Amino acid sequence: MASGADDRVTCAVLIIGDEILSGRTQDTNLRDIARYLNVIGVDLAEARTVPDVMDEIVGALNALREKYDYVITTGGIGPTHDDITADAVAEAFGVELFEHPEIIAMMEARFGDQLNAARRRMARVPVGGDLVKNPVQGPPGFTIGNVFTLAGVPQIMRGMLEDVGPRMRGGRPTVSRTVRVEGSGEGAIAAPLEVVAKAHPDMSLGSYPFFSPDGYGSNLVIRSRDPEALTGVIAELIAALKAAGIDNVREIDVA
Amino acid sequence: MASGADDRVTCAVLIIGDEILSGRTQDTNLRDIARYLNVIGVDLAEARTVPDVMDEIVGALNALREKYDYVITTGGIGPTHDDITADAVAEAFGVELFEHPEIIAMMEARFGDQLNAARRRMARVPVGGDLVKNPVQGPPGFTIGNVFTLAGVPQIMRGMLEDVGPRMRGGRPTVSRTVRVEGSGEGAIAAPLEVVAKAHPDMSLGSYPFFSPDGYGSNLVIRSRDPEALTGVIAELIAALKAAGIDNVREIDVA
Repeated sequence: MASGADDRVTCAVLIIGDEILSGRTQDTNLRDIARYLNVIGVDLAEARTVPDVMDEIVGALNALREKYDYVITTGGIGPTHDDITADAVAEAFGVELFEHPEIIAMMEARFGDQLNAARRRMARVPVGGDLVKNPVQGPPGFTIGNVFTLAGVPQIMRGMLEDVGPRMRGGRPTVSRTVRVEGSGEGAIAAPLEVVAKAHPDMSLGSYPFFSPDGYGSNLVIRSRDPEALTGVIAELIAALKAAGIDNVREIDVA
Repeated sequence: MASGADDRVTCAVLIIGDEILSGRTQDTNLRDIARYLNVIGVDLAEARTVPDVMDEIVGALNALREKYDYVITTGGIGPTHDDITADAVAEAFGVELFEHPEIIAMMEARFGDQLNAARRRMARVPVGGDLVKNPVQGPPGFTIGNVFTLAGVPQIMRGMLEDVGPRMRGGRPTVSRTVRVEGSGEGAIAAPLEVVAKAHPDMSLGSYPFFSPDGYGSNLVIRSRDPEALTGVIAELIAALKAAGIDNVREIDVA
């Protein structure tokens, strides 16, 4: 469960792009954002992927920004006709777009008289919005209200993320520890795991099975915002597994 | 745009699992499902990722099965306490779960007296549901109404998909062709691309930029259900690009 803590700060991700829904592009931004948010103690609570269609983007963005503390969007901020994310964010907030002078200045410095209409589209920001720094390449992203609008290109998105975290009201970081079971499948592990999980509803216990040449096994991951309590639960889980006759159990480091 | 055709058949994907939202696991099922649906002519219209939380799964599933022709869920059908997808699907449809005799028979054959309560959880199917074959390993998935519930483990999910397509009312397959531009960035490509896109609203034109040692470039992907019309548009696009002074243009095979 990602839920539990009262100080929970939530974020949703809205992935925008036909290329994801067509299967042409493998999204990796969701995982990268999730890992980034973990470290600052913000829970990624939901993700949605929608096509480059105005009504779909606006509808999803309004649903998510209402339900969660923050929303991060990725994709659709390039110069081509199918990049309508800025238009959709402005529509969702009921504001106009304007050409941000800082972006125009960057573009004039780079392109000079090659600064055409398509490139100028990338300078458009919703009225009331601020810029999100792009330390990698190309124009910045922007933020308005509780929404952060980032690029879709992974290396650029990751760079922009560095300017997002400091603006979020973060909870405490989540600590994750992993107990590895070898030679036993989930079917055997489930009962002792469930006993420990039910005894600690404030923690997240997940079982991630694998199949190795040596047979079945599973990595049991426990996540908590309380490192000291986590240490006790790790010992409790290992004891419960061994009491169930599962002997090949050890904590591993997957940091 | 994924939209356009009147004979459009739509599907949404609901990815269920804390491990995706925690960033621990990189989802690849969405891409694989998208590519599978393309071939049978079904449009993947939206995807959502939710945690292993009953209310979140039920809410998302009911929203998606109402809005689209089909919904495919992945994940949360294992034996452990955190696998609640079957419970959530039954809840969404307002029916009970029952132990499917075919699955119990498979499990008895495999596990004998090792068929414990945890494993029996994987035999539970919503009343009114049918099985989805699992040609890989472990118990089958199930389908009820317009929802298909598949495993989260990618190789098992892909195997189960083979039993999903034949049950869908598919449109015509979508054909995809790609024009590669090298030495010019999206900023230069955007204008001619937009002209061609606006002239053919029934087709999907996307620009997917890359950065190579030789500089900027982009793959321009055109998707249509009409292969003959697509051939004409490819020629039209290449002519428009060259007329804009973009010479390093050729069709490539990305099949």
